Amino acid sequence: MSVEQQDDVDGDGMTKGGSSQKCDVPAVRRLEAMYAGFRDADVQGLWTLPGLLTPVPTPRAVPHRWDARLLADLAAQARDLVPISAGGDRRVLACANPGLQGQPYATNTLWAAVQALGPGERAPAHRHTPAALRFVLGGAGVWTAVDRDPVSMSAGDLVLTPSWTFHEHCNPGSEPMTWLDVLDLPIVAFLDAVFFESPETAPVTAYPDRSDSELSFGGGPGLLPVDHPGAGAGRSPLLAYRWADTERALSGLVERFPGRMAGIRFSDPHTGRDVMPTLRCEMFRLPSRARSPRWRQTGSRVLTVLHGTGHVTVGAETFRLAPGDVIAVPSWNAMAIEADTTLDVFSVSDAVVLEALGLSRRETCGDHD
Amino acid sequence: MSVEQQDDVDGDGMTKGGSSQKCDVPAVRRLEAMYAGFRDADVQGLWTLPGLLTPVPTPRAVPHRWDARLLADLAAQARDLVPISAGGDRRVLACANPGLQGQPYATNTLWAAVQALGPGERAPAHRHTPAALRFVLGGAGVWTAVDRDPVSMSAGDLVLTPSWTFHEHCNPGSEPMTWLDVLDLPIVAFLDAVFFESPETAPVTAYPDRSDSELSFGGGPGLLPVDHPGAGAGRSPLLAYRWADTERALSGLVERFPGRMAGIRFSDPHTGRDVMPTLRCEMFRLPSRARSPRWRQTGSRVLTVLHGTGHVTVGAETFRLAPGDVIAVPSWNAMAIEADTTLDVFSVSDAVVLEALGLSRRETCGDHD
Amino acid sequence: MSVEQQDDVDGDGMTKGGSSQKCDVPAVRRLEAMYAGFRDADVQGLWTLPGLLTPVPTPRAVPHRWDARLLADLAAQARDLVPISAGGDRRVLACANPGLQGQPYATNTLWAAVQALGPGERAPAHRHTPAALRFVLGGAGVWTAVDRDPVSMSAGDLVLTPSWTFHEHCNPGSEPMTWLDVLDLPIVAFLDAVFFESPETAPVTAYPDRSDSELSFGGGPGLLPVDHPGAGAGRSPLLAYRWADTERALSGLVERFPGRMAGIRFSDPHTGRDVMPTLRCEMFRLPSRARSPRWRQTGSRVLTVLHGTGHVTVGAETFRLAPGDVIAVPSWNAMAIEADTTLDVFSVSDAVVLEALGLSRRETCGDHD
Amino acid sequence: MSVEQQDDVDGDGMTKGGSSQKCDVPAVRRLEAMYAGFRDADVQGLWTLPGLLTPVPTPRAVPHRWDARLLADLAAQARDLVPISAGGDRRVLACANPGLQGQPYATNTLWAAVQALGPGERAPAHRHTPAALRFVLGGAGVWTAVDRDPVSMSAGDLVLTPSWTFHEHCNPGSEPMTWLDVLDLPIVAFLDAVFFESPETAPVTAYPDRSDSELSFGGGPGLLPVDHPGAGAGRSPLLAYRWADTERALSGLVERFPGRMAGIRFSDPHTGRDVMPTLRCEMFRLPSRARSPRWRQTGSRVLTVLHGTGHVTVGAETFRLAPGDVIAVPSWNAMAIEADTTLDVFSVSDAVVLEALGLSRRETCGDHD
Repeated sequence: MSVEQQDDVDGDGMTKGGSSQKCDVPAVRRLEAMYAGFRDADVQGLWTLPGLLTPVPTPRAVPHRWDARLLADLAAQARDLVPISAGGDRRVLACANPGLQGQPYATNTLWAAVQALGPGERAPAHRHTPAALRFVLGGAGVWTAVDRDPVSMSAGDLVLTPSWTFHEHCNPGSEPMTWLDVLDLPIVAFLDAVFFESPETAPVTAYPDRSDSELSFGGGPGLLPVDHPGAGAGRSPLLAYRWADTERALSGLVERFPGRMAGIRFSDPHTGRDVMPTLRCEMFRLPSRARSPRWRQTGSRVLTVLHGTGHVTVGAETFRLAPGDVIAVPSWNAMAIEADTTLDVFSVSDAVVLEALGLSRRETCGDHD
Repeated sequence: MSVEQQDDVDGDGMTKGGSSQKCDVPAVRRLEAMYAGFRDADVQGLWTLPGLLTPVPTPRAVPHRWDARLLADLAAQARDLVPISAGGDRRVLACANPGLQGQPYATNTLWAAVQALGPGERAPAHRHTPAALRFVLGGAGVWTAVDRDPVSMSAGDLVLTPSWTFHEHCNPGSEPMTWLDVLDLPIVAFLDAVFFESPETAPVTAYPDRSDSELSFGGGPGLLPVDHPGAGAGRSPLLAYRWADTERALSGLVERFPGRMAGIRFSDPHTGRDVMPTLRCEMFRLPSRARSPRWRQTGSRVLTVLHGTGHVTVGAETFRLAPGDVIAVPSWNAMAIEADTTLDVFSVSDAVVLEALGLSRRETCGDHD
Repeated sequence: MSVEQQDDVDGDGMTKGGSSQKCDVPAVRRLEAMYAGFRDADVQGLWTLPGLLTPVPTPRAVPHRWDARLLADLAAQARDLVPISAGGDRRVLACANPGLQGQPYATNTLWAAVQALGPGERAPAHRHTPAALRFVLGGAGVWTAVDRDPVSMSAGDLVLTPSWTFHEHCNPGSEPMTWLDVLDLPIVAFLDAVFFESPETAPVTAYPDRSDSELSFGGGPGLLPVDHPGAGAGRSPLLAYRWADTERALSGLVERFPGRMAGIRFSDPHTGRDVMPTLRCEMFRLPSRARSPRWRQTGSRVLTVLHGTGHVTVGAETFRLAPGDVIAVPSWNAMAIEADTTLDVFSVSDAVVLEALGLSRRETCGDHD
Repeated sequence: MSVEQQDDVDGDGMTKGGSSQKCDVPAVRRLEAMYAGFRDADVQGLWTLPGLLTPVPTPRAVPHRWDARLLADLAAQARDLVPISAGGDRRVLACANPGLQGQPYATNTLWAAVQALGPGERAPAHRHTPAALRFVLGGAGVWTAVDRDPVSMSAGDLVLTPSWTFHEHCNPGSEPMTWLDVLDLPIVAFLDAVFFESPETAPVTAYPDRSDSELSFGGGPGLLPVDHPGAGAGRSPLLAYRWADTERALSGLVERFPGRMAGIRFSDPHTGRDVMPTLRCEMFRLPSRARSPRWRQTGSRVLTVLHGTGHVTVGAETFRLAPGDVIAVPSWNAMAIEADTTLDVFSVSDAVVLEALGLSRRETCGDHD
């Protein structure tokens, strides 16, 4: 059985043919009537929709760097000028990617922000379905209570406030403190799955060294409480990953594979899966003068520097790196990191989402791909 | 240790206080300077961003019904007026939800469209990372070749073209045929993970009754080829779910639980998981005069009617249902179906995405919730 | 740092050395005293235990064939002479592997037996932790009620009575019927996990064509009831795999790969995993004159012939195959099947146990390995 | 349809009936002929096999305690009298459960043994499919190389030599050292899956503080090397669980739940599953004077004491506990532990096997159940 070759069409859907067709007035009128019918019926012709299916991803977000000192200065101004309200607000400065036309998101999928809490301040408890993490770039002295379990925060610590857990922040000390928040808010908003709730409970007022979560799950690698099934909901029951442990893990890898970039992935100790179902957290260490491979992958990423200096190339941009800088890496932009000194870089990405949905793709690039 | 209660703030971030503060010109200027600094630094204050965290989801997409006869009429017009181009296009009419301001999507996450192929026409092969399915509302006579395995299509059949599989459609017969396409395109586009590619291969010209996929995986419930691990990538190796099987499954459930809505979920026979990692496919049968529960859940859904009449309530809207109608159900809108005659309704949703990301929430509603 | 080479020892643990040592009476006495101490303390020296760790498996069970006609004749005699007792007994003839020194097991891990039920007879309900399956070699007319769901039995059907489900067999018709039982009893007994219980319930007296289990789960490949999580406990909720479906699956595979042995694995439709956590069930079809590969694997297997003739080689033995024959295949014995006519062979193995415990090993063998 | 009540039978299968039947000589002869036929055909009547299906498990192994000082004394004698052979032997004293009639197994499923290595001695490399672990009850100074990665051993450490990994032990120091071996050998032997092999490689002669395995996987709780999928084969890539970590985990749990028995399960950090697919390893700490619940479960267990004193009740037996004692707990024997001083008890069980096969059953018992 043979299938005949069809005539080509232009974008407007008119048949290409002899000159007689170009003057086929009734056909034009019928097309116009059809398109009017489309509008009335809330349908659109695929052939009138360019750019839906592109050869490779074309993110609107752009590679970008937010300067640590500028962020710190603005956070300090906000600490002076913008009190924490009793209504549940936070003193948060959101990194808004210049490509996203005013949306307060660092990338298409990630919210990244600096949060500042002055001495004696408290950000009251609430919960929401967007999941959050806190990465401490410096200082100490704030406790984040997660479902009423108070977790202390110090430089280099990763603290989780998973989806729909109540969380409040309190600075009972005498020094201001600032940290980086990352949320999956753009994802949850896109999926029309945002819920928010404030509790009617008294604030948490205990400030222990180790949270209950750490007492139960933080003993050591591979050591789990007997008969405990984990937290469920695809998230880790361990709420704090301490810098001392992270440092030990990174230095072990550097000792094992000298001269190469070491990387650890923060995981749920009950499953080895990512700490939360939407956010992959990683920490990279580049020894002095080391270079990472250059690679790209689907999904976006936010980087921040904990220690050291160097630079990062993202797509066609190269940014200098210093402690506290925040970098946006949009999807499918090739990325490479180079260290001047020993460089510790924290990374949050949506890679776990891409993997769960069968959309993860990754490749190593040549230097000038 | 005590933490002092903080002053409230307005949305603009100014402190509420005595009248003296209202005239505090230097503070106002400092605020203005700070906000200017925000703009220069590409940051935004959370307190200036209302509506980010809502008590419940607030979808932009609205409940909507596309009328079967209108879709059929427009598809027939397009069949006459818009030839299939040699460049890879399809003759596709996308359902554009009126709430989405011109986006050609049925809901926030789902593309739904009518595709028409006339006698002797062929839609040439291509592949893309967005996953697609075809649900045949009537007729027969088209083959969809998936990675060169030709799959016949008849009324009531569900045919898969999973992410990144080559697919082409061919109508070697003498009758036009129309079917419903559903894609996860909005999700893949949101994630900046769209890839597209056209092959340089000859068209498939075999039109067997049963595809290789069915010969291998379609024998019966729970019967798998020995030593076959499945298709991988979170998707089913079985590419066609035939109406005869679906009918048998639905009538079994109706016999088991008389008078109640029966529902089957199309699954990967190797895992029992959904047919593709982003799309849940289900078929519901309501016996004559039966009513479904009224429930709502996070995530969106597209319904279409295969057989029978009745009506569906979505949020505050009630739509009559007849064969071929297409219905959009946005997230968290309560839904209930009522049958006049025996009613067979096909459903596609993003529930599998919400579940994978820990964002699935579902509740039964009273009649007037 | 250097570690000195040690003296060799004999199996008896005495040092090998010069002739002076052979006369070292005190050493001998000390050894004797030590071994006496071993006995008193209930310990044994590894060096006195030959054969614990062998280069390859050394099964005690031997390749064996039980002849169909002989089994049928003995079952008929038992039907005449041994009534079903009211105490819970079954009229069961267990295949006892000649290598197992009187144990009533077909292999180290599998119980295989012929069970016969005359017209009007009933084997009353009980349950036990050993899991069982019934494979019908011929005839029809018995129902097996599983947790009170009556499942009809006909030639070629596979019926499950999973661990700890109540089951009773009833023959309400006028013809005797015989089938093959396979249980994991040796495994459960080895693990000291046998529990047994008789209920105090009235017998099941309904004899429907399709069981509730089939109405819910037997619709077709990949079709699952909505919102149903499966049976749990690692076992299938589908209790009967009908020959009509199995035949369709086998003929599809033969059409797909002509001339080759086709094999299907019976699986839990909710997970694709084996039907029960200890027993893998498979059905092989060899077209006339076809030969299987020759392979061996860890774990044991019981085969029985449903249709056709041929022969099977197991280790160094070759057995003719005819309908109803039962074959024992011990671990790591190479196996190959050859068909005279179209040959349908049912297989039960413990492969799923070996896989779960990381002990599965499999290799293709040359013709004379 | 009615099913007639059947006559009862005795265990010998003879029909019970009137006295006339007792003299039914032809029937007796037919029975005798049938049983002769059974013997010839290698079948056995189920009704002649008492005790196959018992109400609850009836383990042959008995509760037993091997005294630490006795084991140490015998190990010292063996160290003097039994050299390590060059042929691959180990100096191992296997605990032989008195109920197992001479089998060198601690329980039905577990091999437990004391292994001793004198100064300068080496047990050469080999591998086998039975999986092993080493638990160090005291001392230090031996390295176990696993697939050529040398792992140091000190008191309280758990060291894994998973199935089919090459392993050798070397004592390069000046002190003898003794530890406890536990293997799944009875399970692997029962399944006819024992393979054994000696390599032709030079001995490992490096004695680092931290193994490569620990450098890569031992950083801290939930910290995994980026892009590393784990070891596969259902076993942990982390080969050593150090006492310092275990102690931290136990003291965290005791702080979290004061006065109660704390327990940790050693797990694969990539999956949270047990360290090996056949052996569950746990460590329990009872604060001074604390009592565990009394419970029983299917599957067997070997306990050993690391620190402290107390006693344990197993079934009807009560044993005093001191460091180095080894206790066998057969299946379904109720067990309770009571501490005099702070008591640290290491436990190995086959619970992971019972769970994988759907045979796990557990219940808390009253004091005199």
